[in-house]
Amino acid sequence: MSNSNQGLSVAIVGATGMVGQEMCRVLGQRKFPVGKLKALASERSAGMTVQCNGNTFEVETIDENSFDGVDLALFSAGADVSLMYAPAAVESGAMVIDNSSAWRMKENVPLVVPEVNPDDLRENEGIIANPNCCTIPLTVVLEPLRREAGLDRVLVSTYQSASGAGKKLVDELDEQTKAIAAGRVPEVTVYTHQLAHNVVPGGWKSVQEGYNEEEIKLVQETRKILHEPGLRIAATCVRVPVPVSHGESVFVDTERMISADDARTLLGNSPGVIVEDDPAAKIYPTPASVAGKDEVYVGRIRNDLSSSRGLALWIVSDNVRKGAALNAVQIAERVIEMGGL
Amino acid sequence: MSNSNQGLSVAIVGATGMVGQEMCRVLGQRKFPVGKLKALASERSAGMTVQCNGNTFEVETIDENSFDGVDLALFSAGADVSLMYAPAAVESGAMVIDNSSAWRMKENVPLVVPEVNPDDLRENEGIIANPNCCTIPLTVVLEPLRREAGLDRVLVSTYQSASGAGKKLVDELDEQTKAIAAGRVPEVTVYTHQLAHNVVPGGWKSVQEGYNEEEIKLVQETRKILHEPGLRIAATCVRVPVPVSHGESVFVDTERMISADDARTLLGNSPGVIVEDDPAAKIYPTPASVAGKDEVYVGRIRNDLSSSRGLALWIVSDNVRKGAALNAVQIAERVIEMGGL
Repeated sequence: MSNSNQGLSVAIVGATGMVGQEMCRVLGQRKFPVGKLKALASERSAGMTVQCNGNTFEVETIDENSFDGVDLALFSAGADVSLMYAPAAVESGAMVIDNSSAWRMKENVPLVVPEVNPDDLRENEGIIANPNCCTIPLTVVLEPLRREAGLDRVLVSTYQSASGAGKKLVDELDEQTKAIAAGRVPEVTVYTHQLAHNVVPGGWKSVQEGYNEEEIKLVQETRKILHEPGLRIAATCVRVPVPVSHGESVFVDTERMISADDARTLLGNSPGVIVEDDPAAKIYPTPASVAGKDEVYVGRIRNDLSSSRGLALWIVSDNVRKGAALNAVQIAERVIEMGGL
Repeated sequence: MSNSNQGLSVAIVGATGMVGQEMCRVLGQRKFPVGKLKALASERSAGMTVQCNGNTFEVETIDENSFDGVDLALFSAGADVSLMYAPAAVESGAMVIDNSSAWRMKENVPLVVPEVNPDDLRENEGIIANPNCCTIPLTVVLEPLRREAGLDRVLVSTYQSASGAGKKLVDELDEQTKAIAAGRVPEVTVYTHQLAHNVVPGGWKSVQEGYNEEEIKLVQETRKILHEPGLRIAATCVRVPVPVSHGESVFVDTERMISADDARTLLGNSPGVIVEDDPAAKIYPTPASVAGKDEVYVGRIRNDLSSSRGLALWIVSDNVRKGAALNAVQIAERVIEMGGL
């Protein structure tokens, strides 16, 4: 347990990545009680330094002993690293909040969005999983609707930014953008297809019956977070040439009818949600306008023309921030409030 | 009626626009029997010249007498011009094929996709309407499914390219791309929001209960073309930073169960459709790969995880070509086959 006067000893695993860097920023911006900070990464990043709250940290190569004296370990270095080192961190007495997919669907691992299912944090074995960057905004919007009207069916089409695949794809999008601007043919090395001036309905690992990993995550994680194991839900995931923020076009069938007006009011009063919905005045959220924001933005709220108890919605959220780093830090804040750190 | 030995006298209204220019190319590529060609446009384009099949044509300003001796008038100059001049063209004895939305929902005007409802051409009063650029590919894919398994409900989320809004937005996307590549802030003058490195869930005129014109067109036109006036269908339309080709993520509930495998075979044997569907091998259609192609491409064909009789699909089609110019010329070819020209 921590020495609360001096703050917590925090380790960021994957400190050189986009999400690790955003975790640094978020900890500083929210005045998270960091006493000591440790920047960990794989051997590839050994010797690098990272900036965090104005201080420079040398990146240490992760090993089993990295977590001695650490209170809180924020993992964002991929599923393999989490599988290998999260147990060692727990063994050392640290609370792990893991941004990878490694632990999300394990039975004794809470998968938490603080606005949605904070009480799931109470029962844990030292590892808390941070959901997928599309699942988080989706559940923040679905939960108020679920409580008010029940959920019958959810169909999602995503518009996911390059940063969801990491800094390499953001850089490739930049390079391709420059190539197009200069009249050159864009090079494709990181992703499956050209992303600039294109959209790509794939790039994730194929897993079952034509679905990819990302789509299955969205389905399974949403069911777990909402405590609706039988929820009828499907998704088609598409990558778009946007640096940051994911969009989602969602059709929701509720169990009981809810009007678009009532849904607008309900969502406007829900935690972590901002409604921007006046299309006649050109007001709706876009990835560019939501980048850097903490909240999940919703617009284009309509009664579904094809159903008497359906809604159509457009959701946008900063995938690096609320979809990853911010949600992880919000989880840690909740754990502190509950006395778990 | 035409003098078939010398070919038809064809007028292109809106000859200087993107679709008008594509009509020129398509007429040439398909060796359409053009005897004489007339390039018409509004006063703004007076004095300009256009290239068509290697010949240069001076653009004439449209008026009531422009259609004397014209057999076929292809209109693509917006709904106002079509409303004003299509009746004059018919009066002069021309067959009008209109790419605007002006006449599409009128009772005695056939709205035709040649692969889907060619027989609707038989009853007409001189004006045939060419459907919306999202409706055409959607119906080409839905019709075989409708015949095989019946349609219960269709939910569409679009990924629409800049060219759907005309050359001005394509140019704005280019300018914004150059600005981003040079580290400048992109200027926004044509569209409601920055399009480069962004996606915009609007930009069309708001019409009813939060829906915009584009979404309502997709709904109403699909019902008319498929002869399913009660079809349950809804759409969310989104503009993406792509020059050409529209994508559509579609969830279809059929009346009778059809497996993804059977749907793949069925669509692979359907007119005007090409199936590209092997995501594990990174094979799925993208706007960049479909640009310039005649067919409607379908991939990501899956059984909907949320329904026992549902399919998820990803459709891509060149909106300037099959979504507009090509479909109009294919209609004219069908009319010729039927002896109507």
